[in-house]
Amino acid sequence: MSSALSVVDSPPARYAEQPHPASPYLELSVPTAVRRLRALAEALPGTAIHYAVKANPQPELLAALHAAGGRFDVASPAEVTAALAAGAAPEDLVYSNPVKRRADVAFAAAHGVRLFVVDSPEETVKVAAAAPDAAVLCRLVTSGAGSDWPLSRKYGCSTDEAIRILVAAAALGLEPAGVSFHVGSQQRDPEAWAAPVAAAARVFAALRAEGLQPWLLDLGGGFPARLAEEEGDDDCPPLAAYGAAIDRHLQHSFGADRPQTLVEPGRAVVAEAGVLHSRVLATLTRGGVRWVFLDAGVFTGLVETLDEAIRYPIRTSRDGGPIGPCVLAGPTCDSADVLYEQVMVRLPLDLAEGDWVHLDSAGAYTSCYSTVGFNGFPPLPTLLRD
Amino acid sequence: MSSALSVVDSPPARYAEQPHPASPYLELSVPTAVRRLRALAEALPGTAIHYAVKANPQPELLAALHAAGGRFDVASPAEVTAALAAGAAPEDLVYSNPVKRRADVAFAAAHGVRLFVVDSPEETVKVAAAAPDAAVLCRLVTSGAGSDWPLSRKYGCSTDEAIRILVAAAALGLEPAGVSFHVGSQQRDPEAWAAPVAAAARVFAALRAEGLQPWLLDLGGGFPARLAEEEGDDDCPPLAAYGAAIDRHLQHSFGADRPQTLVEPGRAVVAEAGVLHSRVLATLTRGGVRWVFLDAGVFTGLVETLDEAIRYPIRTSRDGGPIGPCVLAGPTCDSADVLYEQVMVRLPLDLAEGDWVHLDSAGAYTSCYSTVGFNGFPPLPTLLRD
Repeated sequence: MSSALSVVDSPPARYAEQPHPASPYLELSVPTAVRRLRALAEALPGTAIHYAVKANPQPELLAALHAAGGRFDVASPAEVTAALAAGAAPEDLVYSNPVKRRADVAFAAAHGVRLFVVDSPEETVKVAAAAPDAAVLCRLVTSGAGSDWPLSRKYGCSTDEAIRILVAAAALGLEPAGVSFHVGSQQRDPEAWAAPVAAAARVFAALRAEGLQPWLLDLGGGFPARLAEEEGDDDCPPLAAYGAAIDRHLQHSFGADRPQTLVEPGRAVVAEAGVLHSRVLATLTRGGVRWVFLDAGVFTGLVETLDEAIRYPIRTSRDGGPIGPCVLAGPTCDSADVLYEQVMVRLPLDLAEGDWVHLDSAGAYTSCYSTVGFNGFPPLPTLLRD
Repeated sequence: MSSALSVVDSPPARYAEQPHPASPYLELSVPTAVRRLRALAEALPGTAIHYAVKANPQPELLAALHAAGGRFDVASPAEVTAALAAGAAPEDLVYSNPVKRRADVAFAAAHGVRLFVVDSPEETVKVAAAAPDAAVLCRLVTSGAGSDWPLSRKYGCSTDEAIRILVAAAALGLEPAGVSFHVGSQQRDPEAWAAPVAAAARVFAALRAEGLQPWLLDLGGGFPARLAEEEGDDDCPPLAAYGAAIDRHLQHSFGADRPQTLVEPGRAVVAEAGVLHSRVLATLTRGGVRWVFLDAGVFTGLVETLDEAIRYPIRTSRDGGPIGPCVLAGPTCDSADVLYEQVMVRLPLDLAEGDWVHLDSAGAYTSCYSTVGFNGFPPLPTLLRD
C-alpha cells in the first residue's frame, strides 16, 4: 500500500499536468489509532475499551486494535465476523444495537457472543429466545446535550423502564448484567456523563433490592476527536479530563459499589488517524461568493457534513498566503452535495484547480459512509500508512 | 433473477419461522421504466428524452431504455461507460455535470461525447482545453420553488452571465449550443418551467444578436413520480399537463424560433418501476409513541428521507385493519437513521416483527445512494422483475 501512497505523496503544482489522479482517498495511520486507544485506556484506568467497529471497519485497523488490548462494539453479523477475524474472542464483544434482527441475534450467539444491549421489553424477549442464557445491558435515554451529533431520540428508555426490563430479563433466564447509555457523538462536555451515571446507579440499586446482581456499566462513546481548529483548542477538553470526570461521577453515584465499566469509542480512536485527501475541481464565483468544488463530497464519505454538524480541520497545498471565505462543494450533480455553506470555510485565495485539500481527523465515519458509487463516483478508497 | 424473487414472493406470517431473509431488496421492473419513458416521450413530442443515469444505473435498465429510444444524461466517466455499454452512441449523451474534473472531460471527449454543460467562465475554458470543438450548454439558475428536492444553490448562472459565457465559448472554438436549467426534483408545478424558458429565450435572442446560432434547449428534469398518496392524487398533475405547459411556455417565449429540446428525467422514469421491500425488525413504544424499525434505512438506500423530503407510498403485509401513526426507523445504530418522525406515517396497528413493509416509487435514488455497508449492513441489492 505504501507504494500506492508514494504515487500521490508529492502532488504536482498543477493537476492538469497529471494523468487521472489517485484522488480522493483516505490515508489511514493504524499506529495513530493504536496510540489513541492506549491514550483512552490510560485516561480510563480499569475500564475496558470496546472500539466501535462502525466508525471504520478496516481489517488491518481491527487487528492492530485487538493486538493492543482493544475489545469491540458490534451491531451486525458482518461486524461480529470482522471482529472475530481480527482475533477477538466472542467474549470481547458487546452487541450494542438495541433493536436487532432476530436472525442476527442468533448468528451472534452461535458465534459465542454473550452480551447484548436492549432497551425495550420486546427486544428482551427476542434476545431470550434467540440467545438463551445471554447477558443484557439495558440502554438508558440521554439528552444528547453538548454533543455535535446527538443521539437522543432513537434509542434508550427511562430508569423505571430499565428496572422493569432487567427484572423481566432475569425472569426470562437472561443475566441482567447492567446498564448502558450514550451521551452523543463528539461530546464536548465531560459533565454529560454525570446524569446518566447517576441514573444507572438508581437502576443498579433497584435491581439489588430485587435480589439481582448487576455488575457492568457501559459508559458508551462520545469521546471527542480534534475537529474545527478555528473554534480554538480549548473547545474539547483532553481525554484525561473525561477520565477524571467519569471517575468522579462513578465515585459520587456508586461509592464503594462501583461496577465494572466499559466504553465504546469510535471517533475518539480512529478519527485523528485519518486524513481525507481530495483535489480541487474548480474555484468559481456564484453571486459574489467563492465556491470551491472538491472531488470528494457527501456521497464519497463526507456524510457527517450534512447540516454542517462535523467540521473537519482543513489544510491545502497552497497554505501560507492570504485566506478568505468560501463554500465547499462535492463533485456529484446532486445539490445536497455541499459540505459547508451556512458557515463558510476560510481557504487560500489562490487555491486553484488541481490543488490538494486535506481534511484532518477524517478517519471515522467516512470510508464506511461512502455510497456504492452514486453518480458514477467510486467509493472512497483507503490507503494505509505505516 | 426471477427465481431469486420467487423465494421471497410469498412472505410467511412470521419472520421468526424463516431462515435468514432476503431482505431488504429493491424489486425493479424494467418494463415499467420503459413505459414511463414512452409516456414522457408522448407527453413531450419532439423532445429528446435523456434518462439521468444517476437515478439508477442498473445495466439492464439502461439497455432497455436505449432500445426504447432513450438517450442519456451522464455526469462522470463511469456513467459515460455505462451508457455506451448499454448501446448508446456518444452523440446520445449530454454530460450535464456543470463542474467537472478536467481528466473526466477528456475521458468523455475521447469516447466521442460532444455535448457538455457549463455554468462558469472557468469551466468553459476547461472544456475548451480538454474537449476542443465540443458543444456547450450554459446552465441557468432557477428558484427551485415548487419542488420536493430543490436544486437552487449549487449550480447555474444568471442570463447575463450565460450570454457572456456562451459568447466566450464561441471565441474559444466551442459551439455555443444553447441553454440548460433544472427546476428541482419532483417538481409539482408545470408553471415552474415558464420563467426559465423565458430566460433561455432572452439568452438565445442575445446570442443571435451576436451572430451566433444557438439551437438546443435542455429543459432539465423534475418531472414527478407518484409519491405520498396520503396527500391526494391531485397533488401531482399528469405528465401530459407538463408537456402542454412546456409547449405553451416555448410558444410564448420562442414563437416560431423554437429550438430543439431535450429533457433529463431520472425519477420520472425509474421511481415507479421500483418497490423497496423491507421487513419489520421490531415495533416498540418510546415515550408513548409507536416506533417501527425496518431492516432498510438511510444508509441502505433511503437517503432521500433525510429532512423527510421524499415520502414513499407504503404498503404492508398487514394492510386492511385499523391503522395509526408511528415513527419509521432504520436498522443501524446511527440515530440519523430515522426515516419519518416529524410527520409520522400511518401503519397497521397489528404490524409486528417479520411483517413486510413495501415502499413504492422507490426505483430512483435508492440502490445508488446505498452505502458500501455502514454498520455491517450490506448495500441494497436489486432484483429484476420481468
